[in-house]
Amino acid sequence: MSSRRTPTGAAVLQSRITSAITEAVWDELAAHGYGRLSMEAVAKRAGVGKSALYRRWPSKQDMVIAVLSEFSVPRAEVADTGSLRGDLLATVHALRDWFTHPRFSAVLPDLTAEAGRNEALAAAIQETIGGPRREHGAAMLRRAIARGELPDELNIELALDFVPGPLYWRLNVRKMALDPGYSEELVDFLLRGLGYVHSARR
Amino acid sequence: MSSRRTPTGAAVLQSRITSAITEAVWDELAAHGYGRLSMEAVAKRAGVGKSALYRRWPSKQDMVIAVLSEFSVPRAEVADTGSLRGDLLATVHALRDWFTHPRFSAVLPDLTAEAGRNEALAAAIQETIGGPRREHGAAMLRRAIARGELPDELNIELALDFVPGPLYWRLNVRKMALDPGYSEELVDFLLRGLGYVHSARR
Repeated sequence: MSSRRTPTGAAVLQSRITSAITEAVWDELAAHGYGRLSMEAVAKRAGVGKSALYRRWPSKQDMVIAVLSEFSVPRAEVADTGSLRGDLLATVHALRDWFTHPRFSAVLPDLTAEAGRNEALAAAIQETIGGPRREHGAAMLRRAIARGELPDELNIELALDFVPGPLYWRLNVRKMALDPGYSEELVDFLLRGLGYVHSARR
Repeated sequence: MSSRRTPTGAAVLQSRITSAITEAVWDELAAHGYGRLSMEAVAKRAGVGKSALYRRWPSKQDMVIAVLSEFSVPRAEVADTGSLRGDLLATVHALRDWFTHPRFSAVLPDLTAEAGRNEALAAAIQETIGGPRREHGAAMLRRAIARGELPDELNIELALDFVPGPLYWRLNVRKMALDPGYSEELVDFLLRGLGYVHSARR
């Protein structure tokens, strides 16, 4: 490649550097955990200078949170399938794929442990990952209320713990796979528990 | 104390040593995590020789698992309150107290992370803690089936993920406290989700 590029070419190059750094962040998190991850090691693994990192993020925490958030938040956006049952099944599958993604599941327990020791990290995770993901979940539940499938008085704040909770417990705490039919049975349980209105106008 | 004791006195002394070791295991787990916990450090902190540890447990893993299991398994045994609602509320409170116990919550995220890297540890946790705890939970659900409060065909294996899951997600992953009324609303959700039979003979 020529060292002189059009703006488009420069942008492509920038994006390639960002991708290389992102890969390096995942690899360093998996290999050493958040606590021992250093900007030096990420830069070295990505084959860039430390300045390339600091041009993008002011700190290690900002860098890691950006990588995790970019990976995690879009996965909570589930298309409107037209029914609560369809939306919940898609959500359960998206959660399963998120929790069991080789890259993410390799770093998640360490991050949870680290967030227990590091309040600033825990707050940043809630603000940039947990919060936006819950906003997507709340939108899904509000669609069901609008369709008449769930009661108006649904406690959305609580309901949003009930969907990921059983999956996280089984997959990431108990380290068990899902039996065939687990997702569908979980959706049936959630529909009953949330007060699904069978006679919904649909 | 005299160095010559009746058997009763010797047994008391033994039990004091076991208690001191148990305290030391908790403290070392909280301070350094499972991975860096050493028999030497536990013995030193407990003020005993390493042989006192090895007389009780053949390995570090057996020692830690014994301490965790002794703490965790009895907490899953909930008295029969006479109704599923009462039993579930007691279970939710017992789970909340377990997950938020200062000693246990200080070591739980690290243990979960370690179990993700260490298959033998994960298997031992499931066998000596998860399994016996789930047996207590299954007994509670079978009582409800016998009372006619839950359908005979209840999938107990799945149901046992639904009770701890939301609490673990909220308390230990999201690091949020329970709002007032959370336990009762969770119980209402579980009763509906599990297919609680309102017309139960009671």
